[in-house]
Amino acid sequence: MRILVVNVNTTASMTEGIAGAARQAASAGTEIIGLTPTFGAESCEGNVESHLAALGVMDAVLKYSGEFDAVIQAGYGEHGREGLQELLDVPVIDITEAGAALAMFLGRRYSVVTTLDRTVPLIEDRLLLAGFDSHCVSVRASGMAVLELEEDPRAAIDAIADQAAEAVEQDRAEVIVLGCGGMAELGETITERCCVPVVDGVAAAVRLAESLVGLGLSTSKVRTYAPAREKKLSGWPLGQSATAESAPSDSAAPRPA
Amino acid sequence: MRILVVNVNTTASMTEGIAGAARQAASAGTEIIGLTPTFGAESCEGNVESHLAALGVMDAVLKYSGEFDAVIQAGYGEHGREGLQELLDVPVIDITEAGAALAMFLGRRYSVVTTLDRTVPLIEDRLLLAGFDSHCVSVRASGMAVLELEEDPRAAIDAIADQAAEAVEQDRAEVIVLGCGGMAELGETITERCCVPVVDGVAAAVRLAESLVGLGLSTSKVRTYAPAREKKLSGWPLGQSATAESAPSDSAAPRPA
Amino acid sequence: MRILVVNVNTTASMTEGIAGAARQAASAGTEIIGLTPTFGAESCEGNVESHLAALGVMDAVLKYSGEFDAVIQAGYGEHGREGLQELLDVPVIDITEAGAALAMFLGRRYSVVTTLDRTVPLIEDRLLLAGFDSHCVSVRASGMAVLELEEDPRAAIDAIADQAAEAVEQDRAEVIVLGCGGMAELGETITERCCVPVVDGVAAAVRLAESLVGLGLSTSKVRTYAPAREKKLSGWPLGQSATAESAPSDSAAPRPA
Amino acid sequence: MRILVVNVNTTASMTEGIAGAARQAASAGTEIIGLTPTFGAESCEGNVESHLAALGVMDAVLKYSGEFDAVIQAGYGEHGREGLQELLDVPVIDITEAGAALAMFLGRRYSVVTTLDRTVPLIEDRLLLAGFDSHCVSVRASGMAVLELEEDPRAAIDAIADQAAEAVEQDRAEVIVLGCGGMAELGETITERCCVPVVDGVAAAVRLAESLVGLGLSTSKVRTYAPAREKKLSGWPLGQSATAESAPSDSAAPRPA
Amino acid sequence: MRILVVNVNTTASMTEGIAGAARQAASAGTEIIGLTPTFGAESCEGNVESHLAALGVMDAVLKYSGEFDAVIQAGYGEHGREGLQELLDVPVIDITEAGAALAMFLGRRYSVVTTLDRTVPLIEDRLLLAGFDSHCVSVRASGMAVLELEEDPRAAIDAIADQAAEAVEQDRAEVIVLGCGGMAELGETITERCCVPVVDGVAAAVRLAESLVGLGLSTSKVRTYAPAREKKLSGWPLGQSATAESAPSDSAAPRPA
Amino acid sequence: MRILVVNVNTTASMTEGIAGAARQAASAGTEIIGLTPTFGAESCEGNVESHLAALGVMDAVLKYSGEFDAVIQAGYGEHGREGLQELLDVPVIDITEAGAALAMFLGRRYSVVTTLDRTVPLIEDRLLLAGFDSHCVSVRASGMAVLELEEDPRAAIDAIADQAAEAVEQDRAEVIVLGCGGMAELGETITERCCVPVVDGVAAAVRLAESLVGLGLSTSKVRTYAPAREKKLSGWPLGQSATAESAPSDSAAPRPA
Repeated sequence: MRILVVNVNTTASMTEGIAGAARQAASAGTEIIGLTPTFGAESCEGNVESHLAALGVMDAVLKYSGEFDAVIQAGYGEHGREGLQELLDVPVIDITEAGAALAMFLGRRYSVVTTLDRTVPLIEDRLLLAGFDSHCVSVRASGMAVLELEEDPRAAIDAIADQAAEAVEQDRAEVIVLGCGGMAELGETITERCCVPVVDGVAAAVRLAESLVGLGLSTSKVRTYAPAREKKLSGWPLGQSATAESAPSDSAAPRPA
Repeated sequence: MRILVVNVNTTASMTEGIAGAARQAASAGTEIIGLTPTFGAESCEGNVESHLAALGVMDAVLKYSGEFDAVIQAGYGEHGREGLQELLDVPVIDITEAGAALAMFLGRRYSVVTTLDRTVPLIEDRLLLAGFDSHCVSVRASGMAVLELEEDPRAAIDAIADQAAEAVEQDRAEVIVLGCGGMAELGETITERCCVPVVDGVAAAVRLAESLVGLGLSTSKVRTYAPAREKKLSGWPLGQSATAESAPSDSAAPRPA
Repeated sequence: MRILVVNVNTTASMTEGIAGAARQAASAGTEIIGLTPTFGAESCEGNVESHLAALGVMDAVLKYSGEFDAVIQAGYGEHGREGLQELLDVPVIDITEAGAALAMFLGRRYSVVTTLDRTVPLIEDRLLLAGFDSHCVSVRASGMAVLELEEDPRAAIDAIADQAAEAVEQDRAEVIVLGCGGMAELGETITERCCVPVVDGVAAAVRLAESLVGLGLSTSKVRTYAPAREKKLSGWPLGQSATAESAPSDSAAPRPA
Repeated sequence: MRILVVNVNTTASMTEGIAGAARQAASAGTEIIGLTPTFGAESCEGNVESHLAALGVMDAVLKYSGEFDAVIQAGYGEHGREGLQELLDVPVIDITEAGAALAMFLGRRYSVVTTLDRTVPLIEDRLLLAGFDSHCVSVRASGMAVLELEEDPRAAIDAIADQAAEAVEQDRAEVIVLGCGGMAELGETITERCCVPVVDGVAAAVRLAESLVGLGLSTSKVRTYAPAREKKLSGWPLGQSATAESAPSDSAAPRPA
Repeated sequence: MRILVVNVNTTASMTEGIAGAARQAASAGTEIIGLTPTFGAESCEGNVESHLAALGVMDAVLKYSGEFDAVIQAGYGEHGREGLQELLDVPVIDITEAGAALAMFLGRRYSVVTTLDRTVPLIEDRLLLAGFDSHCVSVRASGMAVLELEEDPRAAIDAIADQAAEAVEQDRAEVIVLGCGGMAELGETITERCCVPVVDGVAAAVRLAESLVGLGLSTSKVRTYAPAREKKLSGWPLGQSATAESAPSDSAAPRPA
Repeated sequence: MRILVVNVNTTASMTEGIAGAARQAASAGTEIIGLTPTFGAESCEGNVESHLAALGVMDAVLKYSGEFDAVIQAGYGEHGREGLQELLDVPVIDITEAGAALAMFLGRRYSVVTTLDRTVPLIEDRLLLAGFDSHCVSVRASGMAVLELEEDPRAAIDAIADQAAEAVEQDRAEVIVLGCGGMAELGETITERCCVPVVDGVAAAVRLAESLVGLGLSTSKVRTYAPAREKKLSGWPLGQSATAESAPSDSAAPRPA
């Protein structure tokens, strides 16, 4: 089974980290392919960047020439999963939703901890739309940016673990869902301090994708995610104009789904 | 006061129709500028097209060189309003939300009537996220596509008016919000048949935009819609690469907000 | 266009203040008529007073002999808007709801700040019934009464601004809706301290009323606000018996709507 | 124990019927006093009439010179219970809420059946505000007015029983709450046809009032229903001016609570 | 009228206390019979113990050979009420739900105060399923176990009263529902400190049971609580095998309902 | 990895069928052990039977002497999962919840189709408590009992497929979750007729259990599912008295967790 794990931002080293985490979580026999969008933000932390990511991820998948069995969108709170589900016939999993879903099997209430305060609304909106919000007691932010994580990882980890501790004590969370990536030690630190399970969205998404593929299940095509109607699209797929690939960008192109 | 009314699709004749409707609704002294994205779908009726529209609309606004006091995103159910609010300092109104908000002052419950069944979820998601959903008793679709409206307008109007009548009788709607554009007669037909007020989103948005501008109010910048952090963006604004304008597409470009 | 702005209490000087605020918010060409009930409380701060206000406002409108295009009920949390909608053919706007509706276009979540703790439930009930509650993160009270505002305005403003600051920091409000009137400086103080937009209900209501009138929209009459059935009413309109006007108070009187 | 049962309308024969039903439901030792407002509608079926009823009921209670242990507001969907709770130190029960509360102990979901369609929203609003709405699957109306009930009781009963049957079959109600009064046979007819318990609001209210009095419980006075602040009220209690009783109508009158 | 009050745990002295409280709350002419399960936990404070209690209570009722008019399940948050309703033709009241229902007539919002933190989720789940949750602002725990109450009653009472005070001040509760039993002084202490009504679930349940019986109402049998289908049950009623009573445990035994 | 799949009823042939379905869904290397309770109903279709199942399942797990990595409770709507989570240190999955969770990744809204109408409330309650209810548009019943399925499988399949078709067309479900077991052809029939994915709870639960075990995740023990407090339990584990195994039934027995 081959799963595409698509980073929402353009930083290739992050894609490596995400793909590595995915590989660690994957079952034997699952191949993980990390994809990086060719356009968008180096790190996604806001609404415009989220909209760019939606297209960047779809574009990266459309340009991928190999076969694949499932797609994971690897970002916390970004738009775009619905588009992928419409576009593709294989299962699509967003890591924000995957982490929440597994958390709901591990405890009565969960919290998401993330970095910047400005990504909290994006994560909340994702959970609300996906219907995994009712057991989420809080989405908390440490106030440190994604890139700061790399500069002072220990401080970043402590700041997020502080939020996790407050989530457990004050918000009555029983499970912590990570709403940010890239830190191997973060989960361990939180588990040690708070004695609660910590769910990493990437790992959760890999297992959920494997589950759906293994059961022969994929996205329903009867209404919301039915294949797009044939029509004239301009400038899409975007990657085509950017990379000067063959098809004219201004035609009624065939869609994968 | 100058209001940009940005079509979500690339069909310029539709932009004309929308701008015309906006002008009819506008107060004296309000100038309406219709904008058409340079990329995206000729008509938006799905998830991918909605994501394209989000960027297409932002791109069109960023490329507009004049001054303006407010922006209206003219589409039913498309993504992107949050991005515009982050990007701009002036008020931003989505017509799906505008129609719903005014409808709530006119009757106890409202329904939205639209064309294709596949846009129903998109409209429902918009209303849910915007918080205008609790008085919405249904989003109903006639089953006719946007472009079919032009081919047989009478049949299209009747099909939608049928849904409006069912909304009033079965769903107990007291107000109808139009979830599709381009038909001067539609509102009148529904009002005649159902004896309920009919709210057009474009008209509602124009008046709400005028209201906010008139009261000196604009988007809060304290958290969700705070200006984006300085960072490296690739391939954005997209229009720049498409139209070969000056700035390199791969730089930390200054943002309007 | 002529808009009646009806105070919910019997203090004429407050009516003056409200009408003044309405005039400042109104477009050119809008005439504001302030009305004061002939019975009720000098300031509304509770349930009985709210019920009295409901009748007092309707009574004042029924006794007004001129023509008018819309009615604004100027009170925070008082009952009565539904009665006015049933009674009248022109649009009716409650300022509690108007402020909330506009706030929802300005930020993701809003708070209402008011004076006395005992009016908090009344405001919450209004927002819940009107369907504008889901983005309201709190209704906060400063603990100072309406009339205390006049005695020590600076202290009153500071106390309310303190609540606004807590709403922004603790409740994650991005917009503040004023839940009390009469203080020109309050909005400015809050904006300065909290850097968020501040919506005044009276101003919002004026613009919304103008919008509905401008678009030719008014209350739906199909169910909830259909004209009352012909029947025998005793002692109503109340003002008639009080002011000894012509019609007998105990007859099946014709209703305006 | 003495319980005041206050009719919401001015038709004394209805008060008799309601008081009779209350007496049948009451325990031995409970005295039922029926009160009729001196102003308001002969039958309450709308928003204005509901607001009139709110004051009419409070006025009738204030004018009652005897002692009493609890007050029941006998109307389906009318305003005013909150005012009574603020005004009085004894327990206050609204029959709309009482019927719903007992129904929730008898089956998983309940429906309310009433006469006119226009009273449905009023009943729904009451249940929503009182927090008894989540197990209510529908409020259904037969389309016959209160006074028609007297003209052709059999047809009226059948029309309401039809709605009850549809509630059980289509809405999955397991209990029926009567949302209208005055018909001894109605409950029996519904129970026979639908095999479900039928709760009459008046009877439920009597027992709930007895329960609260028996347990020494009454309305909390810490916030929402705290006694009104001392202030100048004009024209209240209304009954005083209408019936020329002693106290001047324009003074800071002492309140019972 | 005879009401069975069934303790959820096996400590007979607690049953005595509960029955005593029930007798104090009962009307003249009501006989209270306290029952103790023959198996289960000595005090219920968790999920397994709650499931045991569900069966233990049903078993105790099935083994009771006398006649009875209603059954009260006396535990805070335990499972089983739905089973009793299916099993019996007489009304069934759970004290957790009874306390909440009466509290809703006494103030706008209520809180439940209990002993151990681990019972909070059980109580919350009961209220959610029963539909009495929307006015519940918190379920708070003192952190002291049921059995500790007996060792140091004064400290236990103070710890719970502290939670009640925080519920009133911080959570804006206006009524306190006791979520634990056995302390005569607790209610008085809370009322003195917080000036709010305190509802004891046992007392509330007795009065509600009397009310339903008095009105001739009992559980609806049309769907959720319809009598069980005839089928083979093994090891049930459990008490039979335990006490070696007559009927074989492995047969299609007749059910009471 | 070894997973216990515990039937909720006592019919061993059903356990075989369930274990078979589990084995088909399992990954290579996963061993499935089917367990049948020694007491309870031959088929669970109601509240009492559900409560019996809760204990029967826990009892069967406690009596199982081997090692295991996860437990699946195989019943649609039965109580007991919370008890298992408290009792055990390994992950616990209920098939009702598992089917719903996976369905939410496959389409925007899902329906559950089951056999008897009387199990609908039980399934709804499970989904509500587990927080997977917001995307569930209906739980529909065919009206045929579990055991009838075996007598006329074709008719039973058709009756359920009819409900699935109505769910897709009328309730706008995009995914069907099976709320009953034992029919290999059912899923295929529904997929053929309705063109939507069909999720079997047993299969979903197996994959989710494997996922949690694979990721090293298990139930949080900080509050709701913390190990039970040491105390005296009578008659538990029930199986002990029934099967005359060693430990006395009336002692403070050590718990697995």
